[in-house]
Amino acid sequence: MAEVALGEVFECETADCYDGQISSEAVLRPHINMAQFNRATGPVRVAGVQPGDTIRIDVHAIEIADSGVMALSPGLGVLGERIVQADTRIVPVTGGNVWITPDTPVPVAPMIGVLGIAPESESVGSSWPGVHGGNLDTRLLRAGSSLLLRVAHDGALLAVGDLHAVQGDGELGGTGVEIAGSVRLSVERVSYAGRLPAVRHAEGLSVLASAETLDEAVRLGFSEAVSLMQLWRGLSWEDAYRTTSVIVRSEVSQMVNPLATARITIPREWCPADLYGEMPK
Amino acid sequence: MAEVALGEVFECETADCYDGQISSEAVLRPHINMAQFNRATGPVRVAGVQPGDTIRIDVHAIEIADSGVMALSPGLGVLGERIVQADTRIVPVTGGNVWITPDTPVPVAPMIGVLGIAPESESVGSSWPGVHGGNLDTRLLRAGSSLLLRVAHDGALLAVGDLHAVQGDGELGGTGVEIAGSVRLSVERVSYAGRLPAVRHAEGLSVLASAETLDEAVRLGFSEAVSLMQLWRGLSWEDAYRTTSVIVRSEVSQMVNPLATARITIPREWCPADLYGEMPK
Repeated sequence: MAEVALGEVFECETADCYDGQISSEAVLRPHINMAQFNRATGPVRVAGVQPGDTIRIDVHAIEIADSGVMALSPGLGVLGERIVQADTRIVPVTGGNVWITPDTPVPVAPMIGVLGIAPESESVGSSWPGVHGGNLDTRLLRAGSSLLLRVAHDGALLAVGDLHAVQGDGELGGTGVEIAGSVRLSVERVSYAGRLPAVRHAEGLSVLASAETLDEAVRLGFSEAVSLMQLWRGLSWEDAYRTTSVIVRSEVSQMVNPLATARITIPREWCPADLYGEMPK
Repeated sequence: MAEVALGEVFECETADCYDGQISSEAVLRPHINMAQFNRATGPVRVAGVQPGDTIRIDVHAIEIADSGVMALSPGLGVLGERIVQADTRIVPVTGGNVWITPDTPVPVAPMIGVLGIAPESESVGSSWPGVHGGNLDTRLLRAGSSLLLRVAHDGALLAVGDLHAVQGDGELGGTGVEIAGSVRLSVERVSYAGRLPAVRHAEGLSVLASAETLDEAVRLGFSEAVSLMQLWRGLSWEDAYRTTSVIVRSEVSQMVNPLATARITIPREWCPADLYGEMPK
């Protein structure tokens, strides 16, 4: 098993979420081996990290391949019932854009779909999001951001994969621009009271809550945001509830995985300064 | 009935959502007459507007009173089961801030909770959001923004109310800083293919979809966003689905009203130029 030290920058290569099986537009999503779907690179052991610690995984860089995949298939995404036949599009990446069609360039915004650690109990498939991180599919997990996770096992046992050249909020069509590549990461041990995964980014801290429904995911994420605000500001729960209700942004991370993930963002000016001590280079 | 011409700037005064009943911290939410809740000022008839037209309601200015209300009550908001007793806070507005507590200032960001027109069939209470607009409770409906609505009745019959000095996404605590005030509006007739309410703002066009669950609201809003992109870019439905999936932002407008409202935002650079012909002064 690979092992890294705290603070050591390391690089992981990853296949795309289809494990490279969709190599041309002739290969349709229903034809591939789904046992190879959403494989993540790992585990990477982080020396000295113990259960109960919170780690901050800093994303230093994401390199992506020169083409990605957007494969439609009946049932895929929130309007999947309208897709009548499978249809694969190979999406070139040139000049800082992905080309959805020859007339439809979209600026690249590389992000990590899957980043997680070993879960507390039982194994969890890497299509699932949860308190261990996993398939969070949030567009904010990009170079310059960090993921905070509560460690459940010695060495954390990190894995990463499912890069997207670009993805909208919700991954509503069931697919981003799925792409192979590599990521440069490092891990720090930090003091942080939250229990759910959270992305620290330039604009604030986004609590990532996953549940069967988006309504329930928002509720869970908001509950944690209120608790953080109560602690950080020394407020009564009621005043934290009032304050959090007027300051948060509530967004949809993804709603196409086995659980939906909501993102409750506390703006940076409300976060403690030590949370922003070091940002990834 | 008040009547205005297309393009005429007019001003509406509004009580807060409690119709001014909560005049001190001694008045608790369970004690007030809820038949007066969320009253809106109107109707205002817009001369020359016909069923099937789309109107753009431009928000020129929002003036707010010098104090607002945040009344908690058992069951209020997404964590309402944790509220054990009703508790009213009068929130002063000074120096560009609301003061949730004497140590917790939050910058004001005035917005309109209720803005709508007469619905197509049957009457709809002004606590409800829907295709007629209504209690959308979206923080983006502020000075400089515009609301697009499909007209169902001669003269549209507009009403406005439920101002908030500030509100977070989702209105998750069940309350913004509820406040009285006045708004300056004008109405234009525009060409727009959407069927759902949408807010035009500096960053893009946000389709506002309301449904029993947030999951369903996101689905409805995304469906309309895909249709708009198909039309605007001359794409097949499948390519519009792919493209929309990677460009939209998906946010929670509110989830504390009788229906939840999601906000699917198409960034401005993807919107047709004529949608941005004139912005409110």
